[in-house]
Amino acid sequence: AGLPKYRVKKYYQTPVPGIALGLGWSENGGVPLYVESVVDLYQPSAGLRATGSLGDVMKESIEIGYTYVKRYLELNVDPKNKFFEKNAIHIHAPEGATPKDGPSAGITMITSLLSLATGKPIQPNLAMTGEITLTGKVIPVGGITEKLIAAKREGVKKVVLPKDNRKELEDIPEFVKEGLQIYLANYYSEVADVAFNETPTLQPVEIKTRKSID
Amino acid sequence: AGLPKYRVKKYYQTPVPGIALGLGWSENGGVPLYVESVVDLYQPSAGLRATGSLGDVMKESIEIGYTYVKRYLELNVDPKNKFFEKNAIHIHAPEGATPKDGPSAGITMITSLLSLATGKPIQPNLAMTGEITLTGKVIPVGGITEKLIAAKREGVKKVVLPKDNRKELEDIPEFVKEGLQIYLANYYSEVADVAFNETPTLQPVEIKTRKSID
Amino acid sequence: AGLPKYRVKKYYQTPVPGIALGLGWSENGGVPLYVESVVDLYQPSAGLRATGSLGDVMKESIEIGYTYVKRYLELNVDPKNKFFEKNAIHIHAPEGATPKDGPSAGITMITSLLSLATGKPIQPNLAMTGEITLTGKVIPVGGITEKLIAAKREGVKKVVLPKDNRKELEDIPEFVKEGLQIYLANYYSEVADVAFNETPTLQPVEIKTRKSID
Repeated sequence: AGLPKYRVKKYYQTPVPGIALGLGWSENGGVPLYVESVVDLYQPSAGLRATGSLGDVMKESIEIGYTYVKRYLELNVDPKNKFFEKNAIHIHAPEGATPKDGPSAGITMITSLLSLATGKPIQPNLAMTGEITLTGKVIPVGGITEKLIAAKREGVKKVVLPKDNRKELEDIPEFVKEGLQIYLANYYSEVADVAFNETPTLQPVEIKTRKSID
Repeated sequence: AGLPKYRVKKYYQTPVPGIALGLGWSENGGVPLYVESVVDLYQPSAGLRATGSLGDVMKESIEIGYTYVKRYLELNVDPKNKFFEKNAIHIHAPEGATPKDGPSAGITMITSLLSLATGKPIQPNLAMTGEITLTGKVIPVGGITEKLIAAKREGVKKVVLPKDNRKELEDIPEFVKEGLQIYLANYYSEVADVAFNETPTLQPVEIKTRKSID
Repeated sequence: AGLPKYRVKKYYQTPVPGIALGLGWSENGGVPLYVESVVDLYQPSAGLRATGSLGDVMKESIEIGYTYVKRYLELNVDPKNKFFEKNAIHIHAPEGATPKDGPSAGITMITSLLSLATGKPIQPNLAMTGEITLTGKVIPVGGITEKLIAAKREGVKKVVLPKDNRKELEDIPEFVKEGLQIYLANYYSEVADVAFNETPTLQPVEIKTRKSID
């Protein structure tokens, strides 16, 4: 509403636990999609509330992420961490007037929640996109080219994508991929590896663009 | 949205309790339809939550399956297993942006829930389709040809179908059935037999395709 | 509805804790947008109710503000203040028949709630506009020119705007900005600084209007 379309956002200059950067996709191209999680104080019980003009698919995506992250924290990170048992959470996607939908922020939601629960901020200049299933498989999403362009415009240096989107990367022009470290994740644990470690175990891929027949 | 239509999914390389493979049917042909069940932690009471852009008929199908599986576990599997009494469940059909509907995932839902409750993974390379009634009768469904094609594309070797779909199998070309072991189930116990045993009691059927009159 | 369009409101002659002045924006231009918060007596538990013909985006904006202000009060103002733990709140945007929507009253809502919780009235002749994120970042809004015109009509002397709207100020004619002290806030703490201190730490900005090329 009256704002330039491609305003660089860079909302968060200092890394704060609970803030994650996803990548959305609209008719106008890719867009940075920030996600914030905070503790929702004085609630009678644990639970999750979500805001940000979210469509039904994104709301379900948050439910899935919430169910997943509770188990992931207990089984894979720290069984003694009772954060989700003890706290109600409020998760929000800023720019409240902009409708947002789709499942591709699944891994972003989980990473935001995990960051909040552990108190560890997410690596800076990192963006991610990928649908999550209830058992932690990262499945492919659309709009990869547009999302990479949006990521670069926002100053992103590292991107996590679903491994099953590898094929699309062969069709994306080199100049789009240039300057981006691209990580392909098959399971959520690989996303967490990149999100929370400056030098992750997972290595970035180098995927050459297919030459057109000449 | 921007993804190739017939991407082979094979989301799950290792068998995990709670993951079942159904077969869906749309205007574009058959599709693999994965179902995942997990424990929904820190809920105040037992119950079931479902996500995955499910239509009303599929939501009811899950309710029916949930009612059925609780009794089935207690009466037919293990009266001491208090899993459903003690846990809240979240069941999800991945690819959150794809609307899903219909009753034909009934036996898949039950098998997913039963697998979670017993901790036994479902046999690999097995797919199933069939509507369930509240008393465990498996009743016929549509799109058998398309579903078998989708199953083969996904690498499936064994398929469970409703016994009352036997007639349709006579009209399906041999090359579609080739390489598939087809089990016909009349009651849910027969589905469980095939789902949880490498060498089930139920035997696969060999149904010749009817020759056209010459 | 039967009222002159640009009636000066000045509803509140004496500063009362809980009353804040925002700036709205409609097709007819900018409008003063008052917000009132009071304690909602005899409720069974803490919580918040909102009225005033509010659209979905504004309702979510209030939820966000409520989550934020509870933590802000505890962490940044007074950890011993248990106001939000002990009280249910009713927040209202007067002129109940006029539909209101959008996220730009975010910082106004928070300031109203904070004023109520601390018992400190907001500085007189101060208006504000800005969307808030869940972690307290103030993000840009539309209609800045129209809102400044409405502010001056209402007798406002000081305005708080999002820092990321600085660019828009370069395009607003000098006569609109004349007589207004404009504060640019990046985080909510800067809004509070201006709202509750007669001589705030934050300094007003002087932004020259860009000359058109001659």
